[in-house]
Order: sequence, then C-alpha cells, then structure tokens
Amino acid sequence: MTELTWQRRHVISLSDFTPNDYETVLQTAVSFLEVLSRRNKKVPTLQSKVVANLFFESSTRTRNSFELAAKRLSADTLNFAPGTSSLSKGETILDTARTFLAMGTDIMVIRHQAAGVPLAIAQDMDTLSGKVAILNAGDGKHEHPSQALLDLLTFCMYLNPTTPTAKDLKGKKVAIVGDILHSRVARSNLWSLLTNGADVHLAAPPTLLPPEFAEYGAKIHYSLEPALEDADFVMTLRLQMERMGQFLIPSLREYHAKYGITRDRLAKCAPNVQVLHPGPVNRGVEISSDLMDDPRLSLIDRQVTNGVAIRMSLLYLLGTAI
Amino acid sequence: MTELTWQRRHVISLSDFTPNDYETVLQTAVSFLEVLSRRNKKVPTLQSKVVANLFFESSTRTRNSFELAAKRLSADTLNFAPGTSSLSKGETILDTARTFLAMGTDIMVIRHQAAGVPLAIAQDMDTLSGKVAILNAGDGKHEHPSQALLDLLTFCMYLNPTTPTAKDLKGKKVAIVGDILHSRVARSNLWSLLTNGADVHLAAPPTLLPPEFAEYGAKIHYSLEPALEDADFVMTLRLQMERMGQFLIPSLREYHAKYGITRDRLAKCAPNVQVLHPGPVNRGVEISSDLMDDPRLSLIDRQVTNGVAIRMSLLYLLGTAI
Amino acid sequence: MTELTWQRRHVISLSDFTPNDYETVLQTAVSFLEVLSRRNKKVPTLQSKVVANLFFESSTRTRNSFELAAKRLSADTLNFAPGTSSLSKGETILDTARTFLAMGTDIMVIRHQAAGVPLAIAQDMDTLSGKVAILNAGDGKHEHPSQALLDLLTFCMYLNPTTPTAKDLKGKKVAIVGDILHSRVARSNLWSLLTNGADVHLAAPPTLLPPEFAEYGAKIHYSLEPALEDADFVMTLRLQMERMGQFLIPSLREYHAKYGITRDRLAKCAPNVQVLHPGPVNRGVEISSDLMDDPRLSLIDRQVTNGVAIRMSLLYLLGTAI
Repeated sequence: MTELTWQRRHVISLSDFTPNDYETVLQTAVSFLEVLSRRNKKVPTLQSKVVANLFFESSTRTRNSFELAAKRLSADTLNFAPGTSSLSKGETILDTARTFLAMGTDIMVIRHQAAGVPLAIAQDMDTLSGKVAILNAGDGKHEHPSQALLDLLTFCMYLNPTTPTAKDLKGKKVAIVGDILHSRVARSNLWSLLTNGADVHLAAPPTLLPPEFAEYGAKIHYSLEPALEDADFVMTLRLQMERMGQFLIPSLREYHAKYGITRDRLAKCAPNVQVLHPGPVNRGVEISSDLMDDPRLSLIDRQVTNGVAIRMSLLYLLGTAI
Repeated sequence: MTELTWQRRHVISLSDFTPNDYETVLQTAVSFLEVLSRRNKKVPTLQSKVVANLFFESSTRTRNSFELAAKRLSADTLNFAPGTSSLSKGETILDTARTFLAMGTDIMVIRHQAAGVPLAIAQDMDTLSGKVAILNAGDGKHEHPSQALLDLLTFCMYLNPTTPTAKDLKGKKVAIVGDILHSRVARSNLWSLLTNGADVHLAAPPTLLPPEFAEYGAKIHYSLEPALEDADFVMTLRLQMERMGQFLIPSLREYHAKYGITRDRLAKCAPNVQVLHPGPVNRGVEISSDLMDDPRLSLIDRQVTNGVAIRMSLLYLLGTAI
Repeated sequence: MTELTWQRRHVISLSDFTPNDYETVLQTAVSFLEVLSRRNKKVPTLQSKVVANLFFESSTRTRNSFELAAKRLSADTLNFAPGTSSLSKGETILDTARTFLAMGTDIMVIRHQAAGVPLAIAQDMDTLSGKVAILNAGDGKHEHPSQALLDLLTFCMYLNPTTPTAKDLKGKKVAIVGDILHSRVARSNLWSLLTNGADVHLAAPPTLLPPEFAEYGAKIHYSLEPALEDADFVMTLRLQMERMGQFLIPSLREYHAKYGITRDRLAKCAPNVQVLHPGPVNRGVEISSDLMDDPRLSLIDRQVTNGVAIRMSLLYLLGTAI
C-alpha cells in the first residue's frame, strides 16, 4: 500500500475526495475500532482541543456520535442548540461561527438545514484564521460526508473483516433505494461509491429520482427489481414524512408496497446481501421490521458503531493537522 | 455483617430488591459520601465508560444528579433531550435505545412519562447484548428506584450517622402523605420501607389513595392525624398541579389545610421527627415554608446531597459488573 | 505594583469593586491568556470543582464562554436550561439554587431576566453555606460584570500589549453609544470605566438615556458627534429589536442614520480609535458591516477571546477562595 497522507483543512463534500483520502480516513477509523474494543477506550490525542457542535438543525444520533467521538479523543466539547441561541437575536450564522472561533474552537462540526452553510463558514474562517477546521455534519439536501464514510467503512469491514481497504468495494453492486432527490446521504454516497469503483444502482419513484443522476455514473431505475438483482448491498434511505403533503409519494402503504425492502425482495440479490439504512428508520415503511432486526441481513447497528470510529478518524485527522 | 454481593444487571424496580441488595447499595453510597467529603471528589472508577441520560420526560434535579454522579466517577456522559430528537422523526423508543447501545453506551439512565419503558428497553437490550445496564430514573406512575434508595440512605444516616445500615429502619414509623396514587416515589418507597421493616402509614384524600395499597402491608388513613402520631419520619409527596383540573383535590388551600405538613401538626409525632420531600416543592402546599427551611426538622437538603452518592453507588455497581 | 489580593466570595456587581479588585482580575486573566497561547490550554486548578451554569435566560456566547473557561480549568460543569426545568413545576428560583448547592456545586454562574436574582441567591446561599460562590452572568437591566471586565482587559491589552494594567485606562476617552437605559453592559462598564479613571461619554436618543446617568460622573449627549470627538474607544451597545414596538426608537434605518457607527463617523475620533460591541451584533444597525470586519478598527473578536480568559480568572479567583 502506498503511504497515506492527509492534506485537507476541512471536510465539506466528498465530491473532490481522492482514493487516498478515502483510504486514509478508512485506515484511521479501523485503528480507532481497535481502540474501541479495548477496556480503556479513550486516547489523549485531542486533549485541550475544543470541538464545537453547531447543530442549527436538530439531531440526536449524529450530534451524540460526534460528541462521543470527541470525548473518546479527550477533546472538550461545546454545544450550540437552536432555540437557546443568539440567532434569534439577529446575529448572522457567520458571526456565530466567528464567535466560536474567537473563543478558541479548533474544530466546528456543523449541521444546517440549508445546503452550503458549512462551505460558507469554511471560506469565511479561512479569511480569518488558518487554524480552525470545518466538518460538515449534514447541510440541507447537499452532503453528509461522515455518513457516507461510515457506510464505506461498513461495506469494507463486511467484505474484509481483518484487513479492510476501500479497494474491496471495487465491482460490488450497491443499490440505493428511496428518496434520492432530497437525500444528502445519497449524494455523499454517490461520490464515495463511484470513486471507489462500486456499481451503483438507484431506485425510486420518478418524482424522487430525476434522470440527471445518471450523469454521475449511476444506473437509474423506476422499479425495485433491476436495482436489487445480484446486489451485494442494499441501502434504503429515510423517507421524510413531510414529502407526503407534497404529492411526491401517494401513500406510505403504496410506497412500502413498491419500494419497501423485505426479506422476499432480497431473494434476487447476491447470496450474502446486506441491508443498510442511515437512520432513524420508519419501520414498515422503508424496510420491514423483521428484516431490520435480522443480524444476518442488516448492518444497521454496525453503521452506528462504525459512525463513532469514522468521526474519531475525521476529528483526529483534522485536529492533528491544525 | 454478611458479605455484600451484587448480581443485578439493571435497576428497574425495587419490587424484587432483597435486603442484601439494599445493604449493598447503601454501604457503597456511604463510602462515596466519604469520597464527596474529600478535597478531590473524583474517582477514576468508570473512566472511558459511557453513561447516556435518556430523559424522554424533562427533569432538572434527577438528570443533573445522575450527570454529576457519572462525572464524579470519571465516566463520559451523553444526553438525550426530547424536542431535539429523532423521536419526532418517527423512530421508536427501542430504536433510539439500540442506537445508543451501538454507539458504545455502557449504562442508560432512562426517564419516561409512561410506566414500563425502562423495563421494555432492558428486555430488548438483553436480546442484543449482555453488556449494557438500564437504570430507571422514573417511569410514569410506576417507580423511581434511585429516589427511594436516597431516601433510605437519608433515613439511615439520620438514625445512625457513623455506621448506618438498612437494619436501622426496622420498626420505625414512616408516614407518607399526599398523592400516593400517582406517585412513583411512593411506590418505590413502599417496597424499600416494607422490605426493610419500617411501619408504613399512608395518608391522603380517598381520591388519591385507593384501598388496594393496604394489601402491600401499609396502613392507610384518610386523615393526617393517625398517620402522624408517633411518626419518626414524615415524607410529603409532590402535588402535581394538573390534578386540580381532574377534581381529585378541591383546592390548593383546602389541600394544605387538610394534608399540608406544618410545625403544629408535627407535635404529635415522635420527639425527633424529620420531614422529607422528593422535590421540587410547592411551598405552602405540601409543606409550610418555615418548616421546609428548618434544619432541625427537615432532611430535604440531605436528600439531594445523598442523591448524588446513591447514584454514584448505582452507576458504580452496574458499571463495574459489565 | 502593590500586592494583589482577593477577598470576594461572589461577583454580583462592579459597583463596589476597588482598583485592587480590577487589577487582580486583570492580571489573573493576563496570565490565563498566556496559558491559552500554549499547546496544552488546560490547567488542573479547579479539578473536581463543580461549576453550574444556571441560565434562566437563554444565551449562546456567555454560556459557552463560561463553560469553556470552566473546562480549561478542569472543572466539571452542570447546565440548567429553562424549559426542561423544575421551574415549570412550581419550584422557586431559590429552591432551584439550593438544590444545586446540596448536590455539591462550588460556583453558580447565574443569568436571569430579572435584576437582582443573583444577589438574592447569593444572600440566600450565605445563610446556608460559606462554601459556594455566585457569579452574575447578566441580570435584567442591572449588571453584567464579566462583560465589563473583558472590556477592561480588551482596552488595556490594546493600550499596553506587553504589561497591561488597569491604570492604562486613566484619562482615555470612551464613548458608549446606544440603548444605555436597558443595558446591563453599559451599567457594569460605567462602574469599571469611572473607577479606573476613564473619561466616559454616553450618547443615545433621549428615550434611551435618562439624565440621571450624569450623576455617576459620565457626560451625556443626545447626538453622536460630541461623544465621538477625540474618543480613544467607541463601544456600541446592542439594540434590542423589541424596543421598536415601544416607540423608543423611530425605525432601524433612522437609528442607524443617527447613532450607527460607521467608518466616516470615526474621522473625528482619536487617531487610533477602536470599536467594541458586546455582541450579538445587528450588522448595519449599531455598526456598519465593513467597520465591524476591519481588524484595524474593531476589537470585537478580541473581546470574545478575552472573555474566556476573564471568566477563567473569575472562576479561578472564586473557586480557589472557597
């Protein structure tokens, strides 16, 4: 293996991630998985560094995953929650970020309902300081890099539990099913999967899957069957219930009948097919409840576990480069 | 004293707590009270363990008490707050708990407005892992074990400040006054007091005290006087203001006139009678304001202090057994 | 320099701060600025001490600044947020504070929308214990001592970067512009600036600047020009938007036209004039956007950075005196 290097100051998007970037994040995460299997799961790497979780949009799992990752690395954490904030006092988002920078924040983990906010903050921070890293934890319908990276770790750990590398994914068929149009998870996964050589198939109702997605190199389908055929992995996406009111899907029951993943539907997949979901899951909508709970078929819990290791990896790589 | 042992994986209810269980929690808490009297109040016992406070129902005192107990033991803490959560996204409570398990949580401290949620989570976790402990921090009208245990510590420390044991409570008369029907505190205390040999008297309006409570072994009264006569301890319960609208009590003034604890009313109690209240107190309703503030008669502040020690004890016993 | 001493148990108001008090806080903060410039920014000074942030009124910057200051000193922190609290259950504010005291809190940092709450809590705590310190983090329109102290540090660090002392401020002209009437920041700064010998000029519309302020020793102006003339520092105050509905200011545009600070308006100030603002800023209202972002003219970011050092200083002085 060639030597792994890391040059990035921020992680905003996977669109320009190189194979080396993926491999570096992956191998660092694998080493943290080993740390997490020990009795003492803490390392002093980021001691006295400050990680600020600026979650302008609410979140449980991603925020707690980043917070635990930071604490495992011995960093101090600050939390910004909308509602108890100075935003309601007329402050701009950039001024909020500047305040956290001036307080001494080393890494800002940012989630916002609007695409582009983490990038705008990163650009602004770069004019002020070369010493703060921005990590996109989900921006609107744009990207959610740490989710796609934990999915990558989950794919590769399943394919090659002892010495996983991003190359293990080459030629594997991955079906992504559901609301592609509005999904930042799908978008980040597209970059990751295509760069790492997977054969990516998207399946969704036409209202949720515009034909432009074919231009990236993915195959698009408006029915489930061709996407699932011989698939090695099936990734279902969360259905945002509020889409219902927009007439993008007819009903939850009809959605589940046409696009819900069930044990029966996996019959045409590759023999050892595995199912993933970024969570939180609407049981019985995107995926049947019994399938979700079957440890031989579902990697959903592994995704959550791997999420902490991936976020430790990202915080470590960004935090030690500062 | 026989050797103390601890076999429990979870603390959900005191209904099956044995005398040995009470004594073990009590003696461990006494040793932590000693730690809390030192200059350095932290011990490294739970270093790198993760305590997740899943408070589906809001709370200040119990949540902060558990959080401080965890920090005194050097554990890392995660917090789940309703409102900023994925519950509003359609995730089930069990899936939320599974997510915290998959992240690496060692102990989940759970409060929920519905009785039975901590038990349901414990049963679900046991199907997935033998390595996570569930601690009930109050579930509906069911139980609030750590409150009854801190009350036990408070009784015994008062009776025998140097070498307290649960046996000190034997034969002591304890009057519990107020909204017994809706009180998880009363229910957990019933188990604790009866198992440890106290003479338990309940006093409340008939609408708040169903006759079935006599079956547990407590004496029930619909006026205050016989309950207070020669009582060694008087525990008043919080009156939930929302009961007013349900016509269960006529008015706050009438409630206080009939069931409020005042200095005068304590005249018929045992000479060194002490008053307890689980908090938060409605001053002038359940208890007169001057009585609450009298350190010769009120153990309310001691309850809060002992609460941190009891929670350290429970986290320690559960966390080192994992 | 005479030896610095510290006698205070609480910091509620600057009205009785002596020159020695200011100098002690300032020099301690300067030493912490040095710590914050190191690679390892943490000191073990307050290890195992508990700092409780009781923010009855919402806040982002002040709460996070205190929380980070506490963590840099290795203290454990507890957070009280309105809304998830027992206040909604009928508990009094003093009983909430007593609960945090009984849990083992060493320092309470208190913000409340009503003037006088931190003092009332301090007086109550003193009847119960000699071992808890109260720090006012902003009470109604009364005072915000840590803000004025960080402003003092910012003035003196600018005037004398290598060996700043409070005496550097003597004779300097400081203009405070804006909603003086409702500003706790202005009130605390008045005490600090006048005690340290500054020449203080206040400028605001008559509705926001009652003539009584002249009695403290400040000059009052109802137009900007005389306040700015030869000023060494211009401190703009936050305009609370809700004042609009009270007819205290005609419109944001007119307010900005008459009292907004712009590059042009600084022309009559002293040559090296610097602008301050306690934040959060309404850009284009109290101050023009380009001026706020000009590092040669604005000390706003330095105020935020110095805020962490000042709060470390206050927590250190109060926490080690306990």
